[in-house]
Amino acid sequence: MANVLRNSAKFGFSGVLSQLSIHSRHGRECVSPCFSLQQRNSSTSPKIKVDLDNSTGVAVLRMQSPPVNSLSLDFLTEFCINLEKLEMDKSCRGLIITSTLSKVFSAGLDIMEMYGKSPERCGEFWKAVQEMWLKLYGSNMATIAAINGSSPAGGCLMSIGCDYRIMADNPRYSIGLNETQLGIVAPFWFKDTLVNTVGNRAAELSLELGLLYSAPDALKIGLVDQLVPEDQVLSTAQDTMSKWLAVPDHARQITKSMMRKQTIDKLLSNREADITNFVSFITKDSIQRSLRMYLEMLKSRKA
Amino acid sequence: MANVLRNSAKFGFSGVLSQLSIHSRHGRECVSPCFSLQQRNSSTSPKIKVDLDNSTGVAVLRMQSPPVNSLSLDFLTEFCINLEKLEMDKSCRGLIITSTLSKVFSAGLDIMEMYGKSPERCGEFWKAVQEMWLKLYGSNMATIAAINGSSPAGGCLMSIGCDYRIMADNPRYSIGLNETQLGIVAPFWFKDTLVNTVGNRAAELSLELGLLYSAPDALKIGLVDQLVPEDQVLSTAQDTMSKWLAVPDHARQITKSMMRKQTIDKLLSNREADITNFVSFITKDSIQRSLRMYLEMLKSRKA
Amino acid sequence: MANVLRNSAKFGFSGVLSQLSIHSRHGRECVSPCFSLQQRNSSTSPKIKVDLDNSTGVAVLRMQSPPVNSLSLDFLTEFCINLEKLEMDKSCRGLIITSTLSKVFSAGLDIMEMYGKSPERCGEFWKAVQEMWLKLYGSNMATIAAINGSSPAGGCLMSIGCDYRIMADNPRYSIGLNETQLGIVAPFWFKDTLVNTVGNRAAELSLELGLLYSAPDALKIGLVDQLVPEDQVLSTAQDTMSKWLAVPDHARQITKSMMRKQTIDKLLSNREADITNFVSFITKDSIQRSLRMYLEMLKSRKA
Repeated sequence: MANVLRNSAKFGFSGVLSQLSIHSRHGRECVSPCFSLQQRNSSTSPKIKVDLDNSTGVAVLRMQSPPVNSLSLDFLTEFCINLEKLEMDKSCRGLIITSTLSKVFSAGLDIMEMYGKSPERCGEFWKAVQEMWLKLYGSNMATIAAINGSSPAGGCLMSIGCDYRIMADNPRYSIGLNETQLGIVAPFWFKDTLVNTVGNRAAELSLELGLLYSAPDALKIGLVDQLVPEDQVLSTAQDTMSKWLAVPDHARQITKSMMRKQTIDKLLSNREADITNFVSFITKDSIQRSLRMYLEMLKSRKA
Repeated sequence: MANVLRNSAKFGFSGVLSQLSIHSRHGRECVSPCFSLQQRNSSTSPKIKVDLDNSTGVAVLRMQSPPVNSLSLDFLTEFCINLEKLEMDKSCRGLIITSTLSKVFSAGLDIMEMYGKSPERCGEFWKAVQEMWLKLYGSNMATIAAINGSSPAGGCLMSIGCDYRIMADNPRYSIGLNETQLGIVAPFWFKDTLVNTVGNRAAELSLELGLLYSAPDALKIGLVDQLVPEDQVLSTAQDTMSKWLAVPDHARQITKSMMRKQTIDKLLSNREADITNFVSFITKDSIQRSLRMYLEMLKSRKA
Repeated sequence: MANVLRNSAKFGFSGVLSQLSIHSRHGRECVSPCFSLQQRNSSTSPKIKVDLDNSTGVAVLRMQSPPVNSLSLDFLTEFCINLEKLEMDKSCRGLIITSTLSKVFSAGLDIMEMYGKSPERCGEFWKAVQEMWLKLYGSNMATIAAINGSSPAGGCLMSIGCDYRIMADNPRYSIGLNETQLGIVAPFWFKDTLVNTVGNRAAELSLELGLLYSAPDALKIGLVDQLVPEDQVLSTAQDTMSKWLAVPDHARQITKSMMRKQTIDKLLSNREADITNFVSFITKDSIQRSLRMYLEMLKSRKA
């Protein structure tokens, strides 16, 4: 993790949070930022690469937006378009999500989408975050997160939106909804997804303290389903997917919907209020001040 | 399990499913059918034997319908009549459910009740399945499942309808709601009961993949409460029951109702819709075709 | 535990329950009373001592009402007044609750508040129990229970009302909602709090049998978060609190409210009905007879 932080500091991924250290009952925690700062460039190269194997019906979606796969509006839009295409493609039955970057799966929401932006733009951004989760958590495909690096905040949300999580067995990689650490509150549907995954009490502890779990600790609380050596994350995801696809699609899909529909409907019927809520929170002077301090910290690190 | 499958193949218990193999995070899984085919005969011998010990207030209900205690309409009717009698009998405070058959507790719903039957008959059958669960999950008696063999699908539902589960410590015996494997969807009240027992995430994984758990794996996820050597399943159930009966009935019953009422009420207020839903699903051409293929597979095995 | 029972018998803490022994799947259980009998005196010395460290913002609330910190109306009133004061005090951000007594955290509700009292008085008492839980479970402060002794029934409720539980690593100390053992039913909000803490199934088993868990067993099911040697309970609570207070208050408080609001609102909107229900139950002849027998048992022990 230290390496990730050091490298990413050049680009903006790092943090005021390094001074914080939270001790969970499962052992040591290292704290990562939950927002990341993406290097600005005008590149039009795709942030996401999708390979669909028609013989198996399995698509691999690779996030390839250096340095840390920040979830910017552009990234999320591209992600959702790809997801929608695959969802419509009857030859695609399974989706594996992974990262081409070293040491990081995704560092979460892009801080630049929330700092100094108009309420309209903030609202557009938040709608895209909602859309990513709605599409993923409710996907008809079997979805597996092949988590080959750290995955804080929005990266964790993406992971727990899948059906199954395989993580690199590296204690330096961490995962969790750590928003609280930054003074930000994970919205109710982040919370609901986490409760559905690890149960009420682990979710409560995790969210109140903004805990990041090392890969072994994440396995202990059920935040991920399986740990494998780093170079076997993708191949294990492929093997696991073949078992998921041995189950009749129709029955699996109805069952999945039965398990998740209530949680999804709750956001669907509160979507506008959730956007309003986010915008009014993030555009507060106090929050903007926090974000500026955070950004200045990142800049001084870069210098 | 292989032996069970081999033996039962003579009678119809077996499967197209033997080709499927699901690997759970808790290790190997063997897959059993969730529907069973009962040998047809005109026997009027009871499928269930009940012994009530008036000195202890404990009844032992033995399922004795070879080859695999399939839950046919006749079986379920007899089961419910017995349960109701015991419920009305003030001298009966505790109920232990077990099987007289070797290697199987109950193989679940009888496939013949669902193949080539009129919608009316299918509806009657489903109502009986509902009734079994309603009576068991809401029983005022302390109920213990003494699971002395495999217990897939409907057999698992019966088990998790009890207050406590003691299973034979034999890795060849398996238990689980494996309906999805057959292209069938466990209805919401199967799902709710499973969630109440093992939590949301284990239930989701279990239902989406139609997992059967070996006895040791079932203990790990809390699908059963205790494993004991096969020849001690019933005696341990008796010992455990005496501890349950040391608790004042009145307080235990109100507490049980407080824990389970919401789940029971959900079916009670959707009972007709649930029947309609089942009948319209099971009488679909595609589902009937699957069942016919399954039956032909069973017949060719028998030949 | 045996020692606690023996010592406390002099004062009234003990029980008809010593004849009961419940075996949980986690090993041996010893059974303690869930109601306690407080020594009557006219002392006006405070039952609770609060020390607020203004440099850290952490208050330590010490329960010091011998012999067993019974939750009488006076005790609860004093507790709530102190809690409210701290809640209003902006310099106080964290609260640690512990006991000055040897071997007991709190023995729970005072039986004398429920025996031979008018319905009005019973209602007043129950309202105070509700108030204690409402204030604690919904507190804006970070709250840690430093459980340095046994903590049955109401003592357990107080513990699970906090954000975090550290218990003395002594197998003779036990904790649990054991009301059922006495023929009493834990009300829905006791149940909801327990479900939120240990999950549905562990709560069901625990409440139906009225289980008390030894400290190690309590850790296994997640009823407490951490065990430490007895002489380190308070210091560990202080260390842990500093980690909780490293999290921005505002985000932690909103998150806590998001996790607990629904459970709290359920009591708030049923508060009068819950009081009526308690009063009508506790003033029943049969329940009063049970309480009298229990009291006589305690008196004969004292003699």
